[in-house]
Amino acid sequence: MDELVDRLSSVVGSVVVDSDVLEAHRQDAATFCTAGVPLVLVRPSSTAEVQEVVRAAGEYGVPIVTQGARTGLSGAANAIDGCILLSTARMNQVLEVSVEDQVAVVQPGVINADLSRAVLEQGLFYPPDPSSWEMSTVGGNIATNAGGLCCVKYGVTGDFVRGLEVVLASGEVIRTGRRTVKGVAGYDLTHVIVGSEGTLGIVTEATLALRPAPEAALTAAATFLSIEEGVAAAAAVMGSGLRPSLLEFIDGITARAIQDYRDMGLPANVGSLLLAQSDRGPRAAEDVAAIAEICTAHGAVDVAVASDAEESAMLLEARRLVHFANEKLGTSLIDDVAVPRSQLVALLHGIDAISKQYGVLIACPGHIGDGNMHPTVIFDQADEAAQARALEAFGAVMDLGLSLGGTITGEHGVGKLKRQWLAEELGPVGLQLQRDVKAAFDPRGLLNPDKLFL
Amino acid sequence: MDELVDRLSSVVGSVVVDSDVLEAHRQDAATFCTAGVPLVLVRPSSTAEVQEVVRAAGEYGVPIVTQGARTGLSGAANAIDGCILLSTARMNQVLEVSVEDQVAVVQPGVINADLSRAVLEQGLFYPPDPSSWEMSTVGGNIATNAGGLCCVKYGVTGDFVRGLEVVLASGEVIRTGRRTVKGVAGYDLTHVIVGSEGTLGIVTEATLALRPAPEAALTAAATFLSIEEGVAAAAAVMGSGLRPSLLEFIDGITARAIQDYRDMGLPANVGSLLLAQSDRGPRAAEDVAAIAEICTAHGAVDVAVASDAEESAMLLEARRLVHFANEKLGTSLIDDVAVPRSQLVALLHGIDAISKQYGVLIACPGHIGDGNMHPTVIFDQADEAAQARALEAFGAVMDLGLSLGGTITGEHGVGKLKRQWLAEELGPVGLQLQRDVKAAFDPRGLLNPDKLFL
Repeated sequence: MDELVDRLSSVVGSVVVDSDVLEAHRQDAATFCTAGVPLVLVRPSSTAEVQEVVRAAGEYGVPIVTQGARTGLSGAANAIDGCILLSTARMNQVLEVSVEDQVAVVQPGVINADLSRAVLEQGLFYPPDPSSWEMSTVGGNIATNAGGLCCVKYGVTGDFVRGLEVVLASGEVIRTGRRTVKGVAGYDLTHVIVGSEGTLGIVTEATLALRPAPEAALTAAATFLSIEEGVAAAAAVMGSGLRPSLLEFIDGITARAIQDYRDMGLPANVGSLLLAQSDRGPRAAEDVAAIAEICTAHGAVDVAVASDAEESAMLLEARRLVHFANEKLGTSLIDDVAVPRSQLVALLHGIDAISKQYGVLIACPGHIGDGNMHPTVIFDQADEAAQARALEAFGAVMDLGLSLGGTITGEHGVGKLKRQWLAEELGPVGLQLQRDVKAAFDPRGLLNPDKLFL
Repeated sequence: MDELVDRLSSVVGSVVVDSDVLEAHRQDAATFCTAGVPLVLVRPSSTAEVQEVVRAAGEYGVPIVTQGARTGLSGAANAIDGCILLSTARMNQVLEVSVEDQVAVVQPGVINADLSRAVLEQGLFYPPDPSSWEMSTVGGNIATNAGGLCCVKYGVTGDFVRGLEVVLASGEVIRTGRRTVKGVAGYDLTHVIVGSEGTLGIVTEATLALRPAPEAALTAAATFLSIEEGVAAAAAVMGSGLRPSLLEFIDGITARAIQDYRDMGLPANVGSLLLAQSDRGPRAAEDVAAIAEICTAHGAVDVAVASDAEESAMLLEARRLVHFANEKLGTSLIDDVAVPRSQLVALLHGIDAISKQYGVLIACPGHIGDGNMHPTVIFDQADEAAQARALEAFGAVMDLGLSLGGTITGEHGVGKLKRQWLAEELGPVGLQLQRDVKAAFDPRGLLNPDKLFL
């Protein structure tokens, strides 16, 4: 394979075989996903270089795993033995921001926050805001169809992808979609590639929809003594037509962990917390007041409403502390199920039962407005039996989500982590059709094989 | 083929071979698209019956053309010689409306307006509103990814499709997507099927996203003496963050035709009209006032602002009269190009040049907020030379749209009408990939062949 490395060196500026660097690039941020040993890491700086890498990989029959910032949570960017790791780190330019067309054209390695700030300077707004936005790349966001806090009002990454430039497994380049708002010329391949986790092609450029900059936001935080009241209040907010720009649920376990981590004045018997935001500037105050009223009507024992940005930030601090607070409780394994909103209480009760059955702690914060929850199994990693029980509980939560008419993943993707449950969710006919589509794009199976499908 | 008809009669309740009925079902609403002579029309009433039809078609190697209300404008529902016409007319049930999950589950033959009214009764809103909404079916809307007037705020049909049940060419059934708001489990096949014009599978059920019912709407209408001022005002409205629920452009030719048809007080030298709506209830008045101010600042010679629903309806009458008024001018051939908003003035100037070059009249109303215009070639059908020139002008408009970074179709689809330009828009590599995807779904090419691809 020295020959392949030489070949790659002749076509790409950055080719790395140093084992420490390769070791550091073997995995994304998923827990419990195995990773292989890569042959080489390449960092192309142009579409033409990506094409050369793909052609070389094809000639040698070597798989390619594309990587952004490796902040993914499903192992989709994990190395495969002997693979080429293709990092988009050097393709990090915002190529264009058009105020009139409200689009940005970017390379895949642009950091989400860099793009967001660049467009804000021109009075525009790129809504997708995964928690990793200060680190994760737009290409990675596209590969997993990343969500975030503001999805509840604005939608997920895919809702902002108008068109893509993609290097196919053949080394050829296609442009999918368009720059225009609407378009139905041919099959929508753009949205097949969005969320495909590097298995169908390598995105080398994206045309993204933008919006006028949002106005100032205000926040409300409501404390409930039960799960049911918090869930019912969230449903009422979503049914009201108020369209909050954020609607987050923090379960009792997490709320108590936060209170232990930092005194936020939460009662010891807190059942759930609801955090809501309106970003409608001069109208935000009346929006959060209306949300507060709904929460009170649904039994909130305390509702705090911010009157300015500083107070809003304070109220949102609880959300920011979720991971730190839960980390204090033990090692955590984050799940990502989504259910119809009508099934949220059943989901939370079911998780409580699973927690008892497997003898593990399961916290359950989430994006309640979307029904997308993150049940988090907390356990002692030093205890092998606890670890095994945690994995079983994790799977039981996915089964529960499916049994409630939900999906095994709302925003983290399938990667290596959820392959067996993907088969369960899709069924044999659906799975076969997905494999046929994969084969139409990548007949030899060289683009991130070993992911999505078992 | 009598054998096939017998076979179909044994599995489907409604099988028609009457030549008058078949003749009436040969074509959709597209102009200048040829249609073949079908063998038989079947109207299955269940998914199981659709499966039986597809299996029978497969055994006899006969193509299937699926039809909704045949209001399409690209010939996608036109018969193919010897085909089975599969009408969804008897699968017209709204199976479920869930207030809490804000979804409707429907069969494909439901009329758009029937669904819209059924959900409104429960305080919910199904936004997609193609002009044909009183006649067209949800299945047909899905097949073409239909747009409409309110896309500018709410998006197109596909933005409201969460999941589908689809009968594949094999006769097997798959369920794509999900009922939940978010989900990334596997490739997004839902949105490949949306807009696929019956070439990938037969949709037998759809889960659609709903919203809380919109509030009351108010309208503003602005008259400009030039094209440029109207376009600039529209761009300013879209850049303002006001989010109108409708933003329509009426060109000078159409405006004068409307004035001739009914006195709306428009000046003889009208250059363009802009119609805008806000549906934010108590806030609509300040929204339309702000829109009016923007129009005035961009040179409007007259701005009318409605203060109630009745006045709003009067102002919108001009929009409703577009087709009737233009029909008075001659036979019309409606195009459907979309360009980036920054290219709208270039598009309108280019259309004027094409009009002069080919000696035909071209009106150009459109959904300006989305950049989706409907250049309408008007000619004398009795004059064969004029007809030929009209077709050439129609093609020249599509070429112009492509040269401006646009697309050949924003919402009407490709069907039979635009196959040669689809090839041009996608390029050879893109087109081949689309064919490969078609083959993954329909290896024998029995589902609406002769459409999309030449």
